[in-house]
Amino acid sequence: MTGRNALYVQSGGVTAVINATACGLIQEARRCHEQIGTVYAGRDGLLGVLSEDLIDTSQETDEDIARLRYAPGGAFGASRYGLGALATHRVQYERLIDVLQAHDIGYFFMNGGDGSMGALQQLSSVLAELGYPLVCLGIPKTVDNDLAQTDTCPGFGSVAKYVATSMREASLDVASMARTSTRVFILEAMGRHAGWIAAACGLAAEREGEPPHILLFPEVPFDHERLLTRVEACVRRHGYCAIAVAEGLCDQQGCALPSGGGLAPDQPNPPGSVGRFVGELIKSRLGYKYHLALADYLQRSARHLASGTDVAQAHALGVAAVQWALAGQRDVMLCLNRLADQPYRWDIGAVALDKVANVAHRMPAAFIADDGFHITEACRRYLLPLIEGEDPPPYRNGLPDYVHLRLQLVAKRLRFYAL
Amino acid sequence: MTGRNALYVQSGGVTAVINATACGLIQEARRCHEQIGTVYAGRDGLLGVLSEDLIDTSQETDEDIARLRYAPGGAFGASRYGLGALATHRVQYERLIDVLQAHDIGYFFMNGGDGSMGALQQLSSVLAELGYPLVCLGIPKTVDNDLAQTDTCPGFGSVAKYVATSMREASLDVASMARTSTRVFILEAMGRHAGWIAAACGLAAEREGEPPHILLFPEVPFDHERLLTRVEACVRRHGYCAIAVAEGLCDQQGCALPSGGGLAPDQPNPPGSVGRFVGELIKSRLGYKYHLALADYLQRSARHLASGTDVAQAHALGVAAVQWALAGQRDVMLCLNRLADQPYRWDIGAVALDKVANVAHRMPAAFIADDGFHITEACRRYLLPLIEGEDPPPYRNGLPDYVHLRLQLVAKRLRFYAL
Repeated sequence: MTGRNALYVQSGGVTAVINATACGLIQEARRCHEQIGTVYAGRDGLLGVLSEDLIDTSQETDEDIARLRYAPGGAFGASRYGLGALATHRVQYERLIDVLQAHDIGYFFMNGGDGSMGALQQLSSVLAELGYPLVCLGIPKTVDNDLAQTDTCPGFGSVAKYVATSMREASLDVASMARTSTRVFILEAMGRHAGWIAAACGLAAEREGEPPHILLFPEVPFDHERLLTRVEACVRRHGYCAIAVAEGLCDQQGCALPSGGGLAPDQPNPPGSVGRFVGELIKSRLGYKYHLALADYLQRSARHLASGTDVAQAHALGVAAVQWALAGQRDVMLCLNRLADQPYRWDIGAVALDKVANVAHRMPAAFIADDGFHITEACRRYLLPLIEGEDPPPYRNGLPDYVHLRLQLVAKRLRFYAL
Repeated sequence: MTGRNALYVQSGGVTAVINATACGLIQEARRCHEQIGTVYAGRDGLLGVLSEDLIDTSQETDEDIARLRYAPGGAFGASRYGLGALATHRVQYERLIDVLQAHDIGYFFMNGGDGSMGALQQLSSVLAELGYPLVCLGIPKTVDNDLAQTDTCPGFGSVAKYVATSMREASLDVASMARTSTRVFILEAMGRHAGWIAAACGLAAEREGEPPHILLFPEVPFDHERLLTRVEACVRRHGYCAIAVAEGLCDQQGCALPSGGGLAPDQPNPPGSVGRFVGELIKSRLGYKYHLALADYLQRSARHLASGTDVAQAHALGVAAVQWALAGQRDVMLCLNRLADQPYRWDIGAVALDKVANVAHRMPAAFIADDGFHITEACRRYLLPLIEGEDPPPYRNGLPDYVHLRLQLVAKRLRFYAL
């Protein structure tokens, strides 16, 4: 006897470890094959569900599913796709029900951030209203670490390890040549609304005077003069200055920097513009040569340097999602609970979707140093376990050897649907 | 009985493995302590020799010297410092002789690129003319891989492994979201005059259609329309397009791009401007959203992802420098000879300084595909062994644990010298 089938969806920006969650989920479903049927994956997220483009993961070998643990990006494709209200989008929901019914889907796993949890909550309540029984479970994922109610978000620990390592390495380079060359190094980190990734750069500084010397957070209004004073003091003292800047830096009025740059107010700055703005400010006012690194997607896809803790948590959440669903849980997001800092101990819990849907978790004030330019010891205690451990991928021909899945689509049973 | 002392100088841009050369050289000198005295290192390169700021490496423990193998950047500091002609710079040369004499320096090891080999040749011939006997040996180093007469340059293999890995990882990220988000990904690689690093990105594409889809080399004049046609075809076929661009891209007239950008003609573009230029061109003409990654110093300092081959060669060259100097060699640069491609076999040779001084080795035409947009099989055969093998550093608290040397300066014996 086999239970109903499951649908797994990768939603929103992908990470270095989201496939580790997929790996755990599919492995556990295979183990529980008497209670749960086939795991389908939406091609390109929810979009693929609407268009009935469902990837049949049962066509993948056990070995390839095991190798998913090591592959960055979203193996099944991901998208950001919001669901409207029932009153205005009834046709869309009826289509979803047609697809779920045609493939006997009884379990729906949404792997995403706070926006995706909002979509999942909406989906669950509307389908209940329309009389389609569906077990909906959310699995957290976001490099931004801005989900509420969970100790951390899978994806963040690896980007944190990457940016802290990169900052340490590049600073050694800059320090060795600062006497006659570049005095200021800037690493622009992701983080439009929260400074978690910029904060993680701070882990590279373990002793007084070590780089990075300055962290610029979205949570701290940008002050030109205070920054310039600090940079100059740092160059005088150490010979150079290493700075991590979050892309979502804001001025005193709460507007995204660089202001007056000619962009429409509702358009986000392109990555790199904030780091360039800070560098040009320093160069024009202090005369220091600067270099800017813009890790961009490199930071969130750097599976070769993933955090062992992060991979283990991502995988465990995938396993737990199947277990909790089969145990009757629904309409929750799984979360990570911290039991101890050092040594780090954690377990998996669950939180109601409405507690996390569309809620952004910013850095607590206690994590930012009084002068606004670095992290506190409390922040360090929080971050440190999240980057611990290495879990390198296999290599072939000198490069990480990432799996190529078959990605076979299940035969369609419904008519074409225009998205 | 102990021989004369040695002076080791790190010169020009640093790499992820230049300290592996320093490690090998110091270890071998310690082993040969009956023939060679103390190894001093110029603080910040040649500058430190002139100012008599000499680091006494004998104050470092064997364990710390062994750990140098893993540390990126230049542990003793590096600079680009040209020596003038004897006629105009006699005082400078007399000062150099004073310093060498005061510390009984009989061996001089310059670890650098083609410019540094020019300085070394100049130094050697002038000192001979002035009657100071000095055994001068060059050790190659440059991420740009543009030294003549050597199979490769230590530093290049590691940056090659880093950019190819980064391209593979970021492309998996982009591919998974391209349907609704970023269509074009651009990685700007180092290389002002030669496309070696951009070429190395091409190693990530092992099968037809795999990223990167387009490589832009300084060796191939940039053609707007041909690029746009190719990008559009690529997005139609694969859903996205991954591009590696060398920072030193040139237009049909041989001028550095972006032309007309308001920079003085003799000023190099800041890193990032060429990638931004290409991205904006694609966005404005084809309407595709693009992302730009600017690895900047991250690519040449990424010791966490160093090539095992590169580390082994860098270390072996340091060891060989001492051996060859003690065997009576002088006025040569050590080089790497390729004996076989697969499996890669190599040994160490030597080449007269005037064959390598100020000579830039560009990519051979046979390494660039006929359409100018990718590498050939010959190029792949050449590059592949250079990125093979992993040699990760030790980790502590989740981050690479790089050595902190004492860097103790030897007591000065001369009066102050104004640089």
